[in-house]
Amino acid sequence: MSDLWQNAMDHAVAIARKSGELVREALRDDRKVMTKSSSIDLVTKTDQKVEQLIIQSVREKFPSHRFIGEESVAAGETCDLTDTPTWIIDPIDGTTNFVHAFPFVAVSIGFYVNKQSEFAVVFSCLEDKMFTARRGGGAFCNGEPLQVSDQEDVRQSIIATEFGSNRDVEAVDKIFSSLRNILCLPVQGVRSAGTAAINMCLVASGCVEAYYEIGVHVWDVAAASLIVSEAGGVLMDVDGGAVDLMSRRIIAANNRTIAENLVKEIESFSPTRDDTPPPQVNHY
Amino acid sequence: MSDLWQNAMDHAVAIARKSGELVREALRDDRKVMTKSSSIDLVTKTDQKVEQLIIQSVREKFPSHRFIGEESVAAGETCDLTDTPTWIIDPIDGTTNFVHAFPFVAVSIGFYVNKQSEFAVVFSCLEDKMFTARRGGGAFCNGEPLQVSDQEDVRQSIIATEFGSNRDVEAVDKIFSSLRNILCLPVQGVRSAGTAAINMCLVASGCVEAYYEIGVHVWDVAAASLIVSEAGGVLMDVDGGAVDLMSRRIIAANNRTIAENLVKEIESFSPTRDDTPPPQVNHY
Repeated sequence: MSDLWQNAMDHAVAIARKSGELVREALRDDRKVMTKSSSIDLVTKTDQKVEQLIIQSVREKFPSHRFIGEESVAAGETCDLTDTPTWIIDPIDGTTNFVHAFPFVAVSIGFYVNKQSEFAVVFSCLEDKMFTARRGGGAFCNGEPLQVSDQEDVRQSIIATEFGSNRDVEAVDKIFSSLRNILCLPVQGVRSAGTAAINMCLVASGCVEAYYEIGVHVWDVAAASLIVSEAGGVLMDVDGGAVDLMSRRIIAANNRTIAENLVKEIESFSPTRDDTPPPQVNHY
Repeated sequence: MSDLWQNAMDHAVAIARKSGELVREALRDDRKVMTKSSSIDLVTKTDQKVEQLIIQSVREKFPSHRFIGEESVAAGETCDLTDTPTWIIDPIDGTTNFVHAFPFVAVSIGFYVNKQSEFAVVFSCLEDKMFTARRGGGAFCNGEPLQVSDQEDVRQSIIATEFGSNRDVEAVDKIFSSLRNILCLPVQGVRSAGTAAINMCLVASGCVEAYYEIGVHVWDVAAASLIVSEAGGVLMDVDGGAVDLMSRRIIAANNRTIAENLVKEIESFSPTRDDTPPPQVNHY
């Protein structure tokens, strides 16, 4: 573990905590006056405000660094990870939870250099749990070291997954078929917390054995991936190969045995990659 | 709201808090030394210890009261609700969560007189949230009043449900078919917290619009039912009729509109009722 990026990590923790305060304030003050039709506005406003807070404060300290952020990509910026130091940001992971004040809402900040994760911060701001990891330095929650479950028997496992926002018949068919296969292995239970980052932190904490999903984005999983691996867990593509953060498919598990059990049951499909360039206008 | 049962309710809150401490201690001290094969023992031991603590302390103060408890029924006691004041107890709602230290674990105490709920206590002991309700007196979390969501559009709703422990093909078919119908209404999201009592408290808190499940037991829902109705919510059978606590089927929703939306999509079935007498031995 090198000290090279310690300054940047300290800044990430501080800014994640400050972002979490903004999220809590928005819930406390703005949600009260929110009408049913304005809930989308509240999300967008808070999402953008938090992402701008993070990007501006990082830019002041590290002007050469790049960013991949959910809101920036939504606004048309490219989503490509280069060798340059890059902050991958999800200002609010669990926006549906946020609108409903469901207790799992996270600020997620991953930091990559040469396409490798150097540190990660996931702040579960309604639970007040600060998850952190340093490459080679372990994973922590509020300073306490994290360790994945040592369970090797999938029948004694809890599996986390999400139904996502895709309602296409073919995707829903595969999502339900996969989940049914897994339930009937059988597993002990299935949970849905509503955020990828927190589901993965639950894997790192040993509370669930594995989490899988098709449809996530790179900013949902960029930080939590390091937290899982530094807690002793494994990352895998849903087809069993190496995980590809831009592919929108992930298994995060306590060990290879449990991950491979899931690979056998998941009917995979491939959503549009996060790094697909936006369609170009042709001029004939 | 009468003051008649205030003493009993004060006792219920105090004993729920003490029970929650036992649960937390068991997780902190015993789970560390737990082997994979001893996890069932840890659950059983802690479950029985907490139920005995509650029953003994109540018996000292209210010797004429009766009990329905998960562990007592498992040990062969009858499960019938009479007009006598009755404490309906789930010492650990979310035992699978408990074994995994998944953050939703509840102590549930309902109190019925003349088959009507007079007060309710659900202590989410890892979150440190004490949910309470008095008939006619409102519902509270840590003393703050609760109010269900005012959402009338199911497409803007989060629905909570569980897959339960039933792995019979016919039941699993109906559970998946119902959930798929609901997902594709579409709803905004589906969540599974792993405990009926906390799912219902999430309805009461306005964090999810509705929770439904087939397979629950009376001790899972006896307390939280009052918390939902005192927070302004409704209870309904999955077929749309009046809820029957012994039927093992429930919808708890923010309002009738959302509940009736679910009724239309749920493929119902009828597990063995909680008040079915144990089979008698015939002597020919």
